[in-house]
Amino acid sequence: MGYKIAALVGSLRKDSLNRKTAENIIRLLPDNLKMEFVEIGHLPYYNEDLETDSPPESWTNFRDEIRQYDAVFLFSPEYNRSVSAVLKNALDVGSRPYGKSVWDGKPAAIATASISGIGGAVANHTLRQSLVFLNMPVMQQPEIYLGNAQELFDDSGRATEKFEGFLKQVIAAYEKWIHQILK
Amino acid sequence: MGYKIAALVGSLRKDSLNRKTAENIIRLLPDNLKMEFVEIGHLPYYNEDLETDSPPESWTNFRDEIRQYDAVFLFSPEYNRSVSAVLKNALDVGSRPYGKSVWDGKPAAIATASISGIGGAVANHTLRQSLVFLNMPVMQQPEIYLGNAQELFDDSGRATEKFEGFLKQVIAAYEKWIHQILK
Amino acid sequence: MGYKIAALVGSLRKDSLNRKTAENIIRLLPDNLKMEFVEIGHLPYYNEDLETDSPPESWTNFRDEIRQYDAVFLFSPEYNRSVSAVLKNALDVGSRPYGKSVWDGKPAAIATASISGIGGAVANHTLRQSLVFLNMPVMQQPEIYLGNAQELFDDSGRATEKFEGFLKQVIAAYEKWIHQILK
Amino acid sequence: MGYKIAALVGSLRKDSLNRKTAENIIRLLPDNLKMEFVEIGHLPYYNEDLETDSPPESWTNFRDEIRQYDAVFLFSPEYNRSVSAVLKNALDVGSRPYGKSVWDGKPAAIATASISGIGGAVANHTLRQSLVFLNMPVMQQPEIYLGNAQELFDDSGRATEKFEGFLKQVIAAYEKWIHQILK
Repeated sequence: MGYKIAALVGSLRKDSLNRKTAENIIRLLPDNLKMEFVEIGHLPYYNEDLETDSPPESWTNFRDEIRQYDAVFLFSPEYNRSVSAVLKNALDVGSRPYGKSVWDGKPAAIATASISGIGGAVANHTLRQSLVFLNMPVMQQPEIYLGNAQELFDDSGRATEKFEGFLKQVIAAYEKWIHQILK
Repeated sequence: MGYKIAALVGSLRKDSLNRKTAENIIRLLPDNLKMEFVEIGHLPYYNEDLETDSPPESWTNFRDEIRQYDAVFLFSPEYNRSVSAVLKNALDVGSRPYGKSVWDGKPAAIATASISGIGGAVANHTLRQSLVFLNMPVMQQPEIYLGNAQELFDDSGRATEKFEGFLKQVIAAYEKWIHQILK
Repeated sequence: MGYKIAALVGSLRKDSLNRKTAENIIRLLPDNLKMEFVEIGHLPYYNEDLETDSPPESWTNFRDEIRQYDAVFLFSPEYNRSVSAVLKNALDVGSRPYGKSVWDGKPAAIATASISGIGGAVANHTLRQSLVFLNMPVMQQPEIYLGNAQELFDDSGRATEKFEGFLKQVIAAYEKWIHQILK
Repeated sequence: MGYKIAALVGSLRKDSLNRKTAENIIRLLPDNLKMEFVEIGHLPYYNEDLETDSPPESWTNFRDEIRQYDAVFLFSPEYNRSVSAVLKNALDVGSRPYGKSVWDGKPAAIATASISGIGGAVANHTLRQSLVFLNMPVMQQPEIYLGNAQELFDDSGRATEKFEGFLKQVIAAYEKWIHQILK
């Protein structure tokens, strides 16, 4: 049985370390898992006043898109010891209108890659707070704090051997987690 | 001696309870304090790739504007147990480029108004995490968790008598805090 | 199929609102669930130097006791916007020695009862941070922030009708959660 | 003008990396600052039922002791992504009875030393949540996350040259912070 995973990346940088992390995971996935990027950089800020009969089309498209996935993998930088705005906004847009959240029940994982030594640990836990409200069961272990993340890839963006080993553990644990929640 | 305070509101709703809270504080301020809204809803998402010789004009204007204030008062909703994207983005835009943050050293206060009973307490502490990195000394007491905030205003948006009393305490404490940090 | 749940209460007060909450849940449990209090107030502070060949007997007894349970329900006050020491210590004692944590994989729930309006929301999320490291999958919804908790019980300590209705929802969700994780 | 600082260490281990950090700071302090350890490992768990006319003598002694200091420096390990119980308990004991907290207004600093790479960053922010309620203005910068802390000392427990340089920055910033708050 296979699962479809949506990858959301909280950094819009072309050379984002978080996007590279996601790309490497996609490369390493077993056949029964499929992960795809869902873009979020074009979504207008959530504003309840726009939640009329005709909300922004980008919002409804995004909501429709997320509904097609079984699970969600968040890749977030740590900006000022917290989540990036673009990723938080995607979570907020998908959560509304009230009672129609597209996130409900989807098993999640969170990776935080950062050039800082603490590996986005504070942002990682900040994101977890939101997933409580969104009713997304989050994989607890392994925690994925990727400190000094610029050292985890070679020049072509491929994970170093050691990091690839860790990513394989992450994938195995996440596959098990998705199966535990959705089976 | 007087101080100028920038008010940032994390909700774009026209009838935002957070904006109403800020408006009432403005009405109640003593002569030596002046608080003004600085708008943030038009700022593009932070993206380091845009931090070139000519970054978005809205970013540089915003940074110039904030520099003119002595202190910052954040008014934030709690979206999914965390800060709103629009407010987090304003903090991020103002914090860069690296080493040129406009926030550094400015005494801050945080109010979180919400229709929920818990009064945005989780978002309030999430914001405090960012202000650590931004080196903004935050007023600790009184904490300003405004639960069931729709009940705090009359139909014209004016604070109820009891709430006005609390806001006066907030103002007195914040004035003292600003003076303590900047004198 | 039945499950055994350990109830840990973070307040040592005789009239603890958190203990009362647990007692009412015990009263309302269906036949296939059994919840019992595991006492924690006598455990010495965790100190790695005591983790010798003969650690404190109370520690080893506590660890043995927890191992007999399938799941864990934490009931915590909010002391100074965080977890109580006695509950945090129990989590720490059970987590060691390294690699022999008794918590690993046990499905958890967290309730925070408080006389404050915010219902222990900050302490609730602080506890969740620890359960990430302890690899305990935590029920996300419903969140159990019990504000103004002194109003939730009659003089005999029995939950009011409305609160009893909420506790039944909590029990149903937690039963489903335990089954999802352990089945 | 001089200030007296209380050092509270959240680890009871004899070779605690946090205690070593505090000892090195004491060694490096300028003449106008004096820092002393206040021991906390013997304090019974906070329990409101013991807050009678004759509370535990260790509690009242601790409260009296803290009152003699101008400022407080917390040195905390990260146990299971949160504060240690013994340190949290000291904060709770000192905060009561209601309205008689010994912490009120004292300028604080927080260091978290850990063998983990993330340097206690999550515990550090958890502690900050409590200091909001306790009305203790906390130094924001520099943040003191001491990752891989076993590498920061030589065999005699003396800080490496590089670490000593950082500790001198910490001391200078904290002296300035204390003065800003108390002058």
